[in-house]
Amino acid sequence: MSLNVTIRLKLTNQPGTLAQVLAVIAAEGGNLGSIDLVSATSDYKVRELMVWFNDQEDLVGLINALEKIPGVQVMQVADRVFIKHLGGKIEIKAKRDIHGREDLGLVYTPGVARVSRAIANDPETVYRLTMKGNSVAIVTDGTAVLGLGNVGPQAALPVMEGKAVLFKKFAGIDAIPLCLNVHSVKEIVDTVAACAPAFGGINLEDIAAPRCFAIEEELSRRLDIPVFHDDQHGTAVVTVAGLLNALRVVNKRIDKVKIVVSGAGAAGVAITRMLLSTGARHIVVCDSKGAISRDNMPEIDSKKWLALHTNERCVHGSLREVIQGADVFIGVSAPGLLHRDDVLRMAEKPVVFALANPEPEVEPREILDIAGVIATGRSDFPNQINNVLAFPGIFRGALDCHARMINNEMCLAAARVLADMVTPEQLSPEYIIPSVFNEEVCPAVARAVQQAARSTGVSRRYLYEDNEQGKLLNFATT
Amino acid sequence: MSLNVTIRLKLTNQPGTLAQVLAVIAAEGGNLGSIDLVSATSDYKVRELMVWFNDQEDLVGLINALEKIPGVQVMQVADRVFIKHLGGKIEIKAKRDIHGREDLGLVYTPGVARVSRAIANDPETVYRLTMKGNSVAIVTDGTAVLGLGNVGPQAALPVMEGKAVLFKKFAGIDAIPLCLNVHSVKEIVDTVAACAPAFGGINLEDIAAPRCFAIEEELSRRLDIPVFHDDQHGTAVVTVAGLLNALRVVNKRIDKVKIVVSGAGAAGVAITRMLLSTGARHIVVCDSKGAISRDNMPEIDSKKWLALHTNERCVHGSLREVIQGADVFIGVSAPGLLHRDDVLRMAEKPVVFALANPEPEVEPREILDIAGVIATGRSDFPNQINNVLAFPGIFRGALDCHARMINNEMCLAAARVLADMVTPEQLSPEYIIPSVFNEEVCPAVARAVQQAARSTGVSRRYLYEDNEQGKLLNFATT
Repeated sequence: MSLNVTIRLKLTNQPGTLAQVLAVIAAEGGNLGSIDLVSATSDYKVRELMVWFNDQEDLVGLINALEKIPGVQVMQVADRVFIKHLGGKIEIKAKRDIHGREDLGLVYTPGVARVSRAIANDPETVYRLTMKGNSVAIVTDGTAVLGLGNVGPQAALPVMEGKAVLFKKFAGIDAIPLCLNVHSVKEIVDTVAACAPAFGGINLEDIAAPRCFAIEEELSRRLDIPVFHDDQHGTAVVTVAGLLNALRVVNKRIDKVKIVVSGAGAAGVAITRMLLSTGARHIVVCDSKGAISRDNMPEIDSKKWLALHTNERCVHGSLREVIQGADVFIGVSAPGLLHRDDVLRMAEKPVVFALANPEPEVEPREILDIAGVIATGRSDFPNQINNVLAFPGIFRGALDCHARMINNEMCLAAARVLADMVTPEQLSPEYIIPSVFNEEVCPAVARAVQQAARSTGVSRRYLYEDNEQGKLLNFATT
Repeated sequence: MSLNVTIRLKLTNQPGTLAQVLAVIAAEGGNLGSIDLVSATSDYKVRELMVWFNDQEDLVGLINALEKIPGVQVMQVADRVFIKHLGGKIEIKAKRDIHGREDLGLVYTPGVARVSRAIANDPETVYRLTMKGNSVAIVTDGTAVLGLGNVGPQAALPVMEGKAVLFKKFAGIDAIPLCLNVHSVKEIVDTVAACAPAFGGINLEDIAAPRCFAIEEELSRRLDIPVFHDDQHGTAVVTVAGLLNALRVVNKRIDKVKIVVSGAGAAGVAITRMLLSTGARHIVVCDSKGAISRDNMPEIDSKKWLALHTNERCVHGSLREVIQGADVFIGVSAPGLLHRDDVLRMAEKPVVFALANPEPEVEPREILDIAGVIATGRSDFPNQINNVLAFPGIFRGALDCHARMINNEMCLAAARVLADMVTPEQLSPEYIIPSVFNEEVCPAVARAVQQAARSTGVSRRYLYEDNEQGKLLNFATT
């Protein structure tokens, strides 16, 4: 039901006309939402109906069918997704309005020259006197957009704008899409490094593996602001948070469980790394060719790393073979790779994280009675593993302390605090992770991340953390 | 009076205390603005005073003097310029709020995937479904910031944010600062070209000459969106508009007047080019070494161009020498290069555009009685030549018709319409150009620019200009 439209109809005032409309909608597979009356005369009524569809073709069929009903005129068909995108989803707003010549001289020439000079003299003040302290560049080259693949930088833009909306909504952060039409590691790194001065952080997004690993690594080395690849670390943080709680539900220890990860892309690699650093000992990672192992060394560096650090006993075989006896399945791969009988061959009370989007690796409804805990990436099942639980708070924490980077300790702190937000009383197979609309999530993650930044020495904010407001106002004159 | 502060004082309720404060302010050279009462008890009052100063040192003297008055306590000294910059001047705003899970699914996954697909299938839709159609990147490398020179990309950021505020205020355009820490022509061009997909236009800003010429040229060649260097073309448009009217005031013809341009940087070159294309025949351009002429060919390409296209009679000498007998002086150079006796040696009713900022080439007060028309870059004299009269409308027009570029015809159209906004009845030596706060300016410039774009074939909007709204809403289903 991803196609969400409003249909505006002009209906003659003939008893039964609306009923015929509703019957046609049902017959064409539409799912009816609200019905609004837009206007009415003695001759006709204008109504707006909200309808959900599975796909475009059902909708075309419906429009054709509606137009055949006597007394019905289709005035407008508006796709609600597209309406929400008209003119884009984000805009620039001035924080303070300009009311006249005097304001103009304060925010622009000649006043602004003194601010520029202040920053030239003391570069750290750029965090207080410009957008930098609260801004993040969302960088993509459009090569791995959602489930769509390589659609290019312009087609990636709506996704990046959506991400910017989330950054603002959940963390108050000003995030700006940078959609790049260059694709080599060197070009992307050079471009982002060149653009870095105005930003307090870099969020890499939807860049295909394995280039994404080298890009993140090289950028982190070159820049003194956090560089964070959300598809890796954001996903890993929320997945590990969920898994910590799932294991509490089934009463198993992370250092004892046998974990199978399906998918060796950005998310699979990052989840595996984080699992290892939270104490997991027995992990097998599968790509499309089956279990990755060190006696059959892969060519790509990131997979080599997996081969060297997982699958100690060098098991071989396809995902469906190695899943046998596993306590935990974590899928960040493709729809329909597992079936009920595979989950039946897992260990007792299996934990199944089928995170492929929008269609999971195994249909949750197939395994409700046999799984210990199920999580997906979808909002229409319990236990949604959604990055929006992590990246806003992680960046909020990093920006607030002017962190030089987002390190493993900060990510782990985020995962732990996310898990701990579900109290022992709340914890259940259907509730292992907070809701994305829980307003306590972002501040809690931000606090934990900032604390980890301070304790690992990557925070720069201690320079002027006392009596901030007073100093802020006075510093120009002292 | 560029230092603008508010001083918060706690004053004991003793008659005469405030009077003493005001006396001290006057004695220390402060210029008093408003006096607000913040709070009051039976023992004391808290007051906030707005004061202007010439420089920082006067202020420090005042604070010291105030603290010596019995019954006066200085609570806070706030610099109004810096207060306007705290936390930066711009932010990202979501155009539509997210109210719950359903909205989330419309602006982000899964809904957004369909928008991405639509753009991948029909790239032109990116203008309607994303920020691109209304967004401009403000690109600088921080090498020629205001009068400050090469302060670097971070210190340039407040200026770029100020520009973004102006873009929004005057044209409703979402402009995003890109402050680059690369400086070669190739690196800047490559970086901007890589970032172009999300933007509908590129505004180059405060990039030093002569690199700025090659950067603009190369980017215009590579990109299919407008690339506009405001320091060149914005300044040229407003200067030429002002000059057209100034010549009407003194009743001289542009093809007859002898024009001396001081400054061969970005502005000087662009002004000269535009003057030539409006019919000026007799131009001599001076750089710091004096008149540029073809029998003493300069090394830099942009100056070579000037040598070949101006100064036909190959006059030589310093600015103060060649100004003799000139009808028009246009200064985009440095403070104090001309004096009253130089202007006295110009032709009858000389037109003096002393545009160096913040200090003009010649002090207007020195030549009020001998000049025909005087214009400056300053807001505290009549006839302010301010780019904000041009760039918002030029970009508005270009974006509205999805122009591929901003060409000379579009700039000339902007200059002509700006000049024509001053009616014959209004035209006078003190009124040759509209006010920056005249709300008719941006729409008028935009219309003229769009018309020129259409007539020169660089507009793309004809693709779907009829019945826009209906198509916008329906296109997803057709």
